Amino acid sequence: MAAMKWWGWGEEGVGFSHEDKPDLAPFIARAVGVDVGRKVSAPVRFGQLQIPDPQLPAGLRGALERVITATFISTDPLDRVVHARGKSLRDLIRQRSGELPRLPDVIVRPGSEDDVIAVLQAAVHADAVVIPFGGGSSISGSLEAPAGETRPVISVDLERLDKVLEIDSGSRLARVQAGVFGPHIEQQLGAFGYTFGHFPDSFEHSTLGGWIATRSSGMQSDRYGDIADMVKGLRVVTPSGTLVTRPVPSASTGPSVREMVLGSEGRLGIITEATVHIRRIPERRTILGYLFPTFGDGLAAMQDLAASDHAVSVTRVSDANETQFSFAMRVQPTLVDKLQSRLLRIFLRRRLGFDLNQMCISFIGYEGGDRHVAAQRRAVGRLVKRHGGLCIGSRPGVLYDKKKFDIPYIRDFLLDRGAAGDVSDTATTWSGLMRLYDAVVTAANGAFAQLAVHGYVMCHLSHSYHAGACLYFTFAFKARTNMTAEYELVKSAIQQAFVDNGATLSHHHAVGTEHAQWLEQDISAPGVVMLRALFDGTDPGKHLNPGKIV
Amino acid sequence: MAAMKWWGWGEEGVGFSHEDKPDLAPFIARAVGVDVGRKVSAPVRFGQLQIPDPQLPAGLRGALERVITATFISTDPLDRVVHARGKSLRDLIRQRSGELPRLPDVIVRPGSEDDVIAVLQAAVHADAVVIPFGGGSSISGSLEAPAGETRPVISVDLERLDKVLEIDSGSRLARVQAGVFGPHIEQQLGAFGYTFGHFPDSFEHSTLGGWIATRSSGMQSDRYGDIADMVKGLRVVTPSGTLVTRPVPSASTGPSVREMVLGSEGRLGIITEATVHIRRIPERRTILGYLFPTFGDGLAAMQDLAASDHAVSVTRVSDANETQFSFAMRVQPTLVDKLQSRLLRIFLRRRLGFDLNQMCISFIGYEGGDRHVAAQRRAVGRLVKRHGGLCIGSRPGVLYDKKKFDIPYIRDFLLDRGAAGDVSDTATTWSGLMRLYDAVVTAANGAFAQLAVHGYVMCHLSHSYHAGACLYFTFAFKARTNMTAEYELVKSAIQQAFVDNGATLSHHHAVGTEHAQWLEQDISAPGVVMLRALFDGTDPGKHLNPGKIV
Repeated sequence: MAAMKWWGWGEEGVGFSHEDKPDLAPFIARAVGVDVGRKVSAPVRFGQLQIPDPQLPAGLRGALERVITATFISTDPLDRVVHARGKSLRDLIRQRSGELPRLPDVIVRPGSEDDVIAVLQAAVHADAVVIPFGGGSSISGSLEAPAGETRPVISVDLERLDKVLEIDSGSRLARVQAGVFGPHIEQQLGAFGYTFGHFPDSFEHSTLGGWIATRSSGMQSDRYGDIADMVKGLRVVTPSGTLVTRPVPSASTGPSVREMVLGSEGRLGIITEATVHIRRIPERRTILGYLFPTFGDGLAAMQDLAASDHAVSVTRVSDANETQFSFAMRVQPTLVDKLQSRLLRIFLRRRLGFDLNQMCISFIGYEGGDRHVAAQRRAVGRLVKRHGGLCIGSRPGVLYDKKKFDIPYIRDFLLDRGAAGDVSDTATTWSGLMRLYDAVVTAANGAFAQLAVHGYVMCHLSHSYHAGACLYFTFAFKARTNMTAEYELVKSAIQQAFVDNGATLSHHHAVGTEHAQWLEQDISAPGVVMLRALFDGTDPGKHLNPGKIV
Repeated sequence: MAAMKWWGWGEEGVGFSHEDKPDLAPFIARAVGVDVGRKVSAPVRFGQLQIPDPQLPAGLRGALERVITATFISTDPLDRVVHARGKSLRDLIRQRSGELPRLPDVIVRPGSEDDVIAVLQAAVHADAVVIPFGGGSSISGSLEAPAGETRPVISVDLERLDKVLEIDSGSRLARVQAGVFGPHIEQQLGAFGYTFGHFPDSFEHSTLGGWIATRSSGMQSDRYGDIADMVKGLRVVTPSGTLVTRPVPSASTGPSVREMVLGSEGRLGIITEATVHIRRIPERRTILGYLFPTFGDGLAAMQDLAASDHAVSVTRVSDANETQFSFAMRVQPTLVDKLQSRLLRIFLRRRLGFDLNQMCISFIGYEGGDRHVAAQRRAVGRLVKRHGGLCIGSRPGVLYDKKKFDIPYIRDFLLDRGAAGDVSDTATTWSGLMRLYDAVVTAANGAFAQLAVHGYVMCHLSHSYHAGACLYFTFAFKARTNMTAEYELVKSAIQQAFVDNGATLSHHHAVGTEHAQWLEQDISAPGVVMLRALFDGTDPGKHLNPGKIV
């Protein structure tokens, strides 16, 4: 798997374009006051970067070379820059401007768990810092070494640990190495008729180990579970040896050490392998589009759905602002498309009494055997109707499915045009959802007003649970003077609205350094004491990704 | 809620009897060589117990009296004996013989979270030990103070914290105090049309806080989830303040502190309150009985069911030995019953080719709306048939449902007759289940043979998951010379077979002191390091239930 761009999302040569989306330019002009035709910023050239020499003591280098083939020990400048950070908006802004952080001194690419053990031992012996690296897609600052770090910094890139080792078809479990990327795990399992079913937005650029270390969620987690539900056995190289948890379905063995690894962001050790739930590729998989008169109607429908006997794979409802964005993203509509769309709008307005400015698009996914899917579709269709919703067929779902992994590229597109765009996700109870939504939108718009910037905030419900749901916010604004400071204010306003309204600081993007300031408000002071106790006692030498989470 | 017997299960005056079960006496004679008519042992009288005076320094007593009304501070001898231990078989044997442990010096019954905070502060200040007490039904030794404990020991009985405080019907969540007993939480929720749905065997004698502290499972956990899935928000009084986790459905906030409290057995603090999933009392609830030709057929059916699109509330399959026991437990069969039973046996043998000695009884439960339950029953019926199974209607399920909470009393009944009976539960993957079962049965029978005792081991699958299931073993034998030593050998053989065959040391009965010796073999040495780190860092003064788990 090729490394990500050092300055942006995804691989070199791939990017977001408005040119095949005729409605997008006017939408962006309206939403954030940006003329998409006018690029105002570009990343500095790589040659312009000031890259300090690596500080790799001869003893440590020797120890690494004794265990890892030289090809897999890199002090290459590009490699060091790519491994220095993740892809938070703050990361992108700084990388583009050439403002580099404390770079790792060396990148090692172990080829086995034994290699990982030897690397960690060498690091502890040399009093070095170890930062595990999966796909490098963190948007929470989980990958950057502390600014003042004086010890050698080793980035351990797990990309060579990329195999599905074993499939236990009777138990629907697979033993998988931690460095495997999303498409590659699906490809290896798919060859045997199985799927893992974990599809975060970062799917193409993130790894199993990264998903585990951040408590990731995917687009079909309503069916497959969050990563925390899907991972059973774990192998983690720690300073006191290799932690091995058994792939048992449930256990009463004290506080769950398996759960402690989930979300640990490299603070407890290096995840090398996991035994994970897999499922047969379903007979049928459909995502249907629906329209609701308002966001409130859509949320109420999802709430009812969660309380029902029905089983679905995806629940998603966009608010009115995101619905407008979604429509503006349409690729090359044909004349027939345009006509249909026009007729639909007339029907919605005149026959169903929709206010088209309030209308919200929703996707509900179905998976399983033909009979099961057919029965669920019918039952959910009736439920949606009771909330004033209308099914608009499978085409919008197919389009959504196609473009879903392209969305992260849009941040680079906006940065080129002087605008900041980012996401913040949270979760709360069903009863608190609408109040939370209103508070966050008010907070974001308040921040835009305070800064006197042209901004836009939009949201979708992305996952449903028994007692609540995830709200996933996207916001963008045209920067005025200092994009970083302005971003800081908007992002903080949103995060503070989360914790002030009983919600969590993050549903699936981890803590890192970006969210650490809200952690105590979320999990309370004794919760922070417990995390510190766990980290300090497991890694007394503070070699493992210091400064993250707490 | 009245306290349990100091010497056995349940309340005084309630016990197990064979007299209304005509087939039981001959079954027990065959299985463990015991004549039920001949009692050979009885608990010593309470008056015979040697009860040392409580060691409660005046300063500590004063501090407690300043916060808790005198009525709720007890040094009563019976109270101290009842709170000294749980109900493991080893506990029962020792209590009956008058061999008391280090007794708690005082029992306090706080009436509020503020009371709990004050008690913990007083305890820390006086360098005392605090052991939280729920229903006292632990069978893992989680409640006993260390033998050599020289500090004052305070048992904190949460029975006064027994209220459902708030129902959030929109989110299907209830805020509930930790000291509430099973029947009382159902009663309070039932008044509003809700159920918690957690029904462990100990249901009548255990509390919400106890379920959380031990990672409990209930009989309908296939639908409602294990307690770990049902508990969202938590309030826990710790030495560094009150831990508060938000009742959000899912979060990515580092290693989950919520999960650290689950299974913590009082080592991290005193749980005062939880916000838990609730559900509407379902329109329909049915448990159907099925017969399978062999245990292997029954397991294979449950495995297929777990991989299907069907949703059920209970999956249970007894092995042939437990099936025999189950039939022997029938209460007063009428002439019609006997005739039906005879005809069924003829039908099974002659038409279906069952070997009646291998035949296994199974229960599958269905809950939800009428249509849902009907559809699931039909679909599961077809699945069962494919595995050679036969539905025998709802009557066995009704009987099973009635008697399920009486089973724990049988240990006292056997002890009166010189026989030891106990349970051990575990979980593993579907693929490993049959090998595990064979290994455990072989280990138990090997131990019986080694001891030259007349013994019996039986098993049921009690919970199904995506990738595996829980196997719940019951074993009994007639003691020869030293019941405790003989029990130790049998129990150890079974537990060792669990960990030697890739299974967990306990599925839902916690670690305590009973299972601590297998913990490292289960979660590996670094797992133990992590638990120690967590406990030592959270409770540096070692005031909280010392010596449990690790």
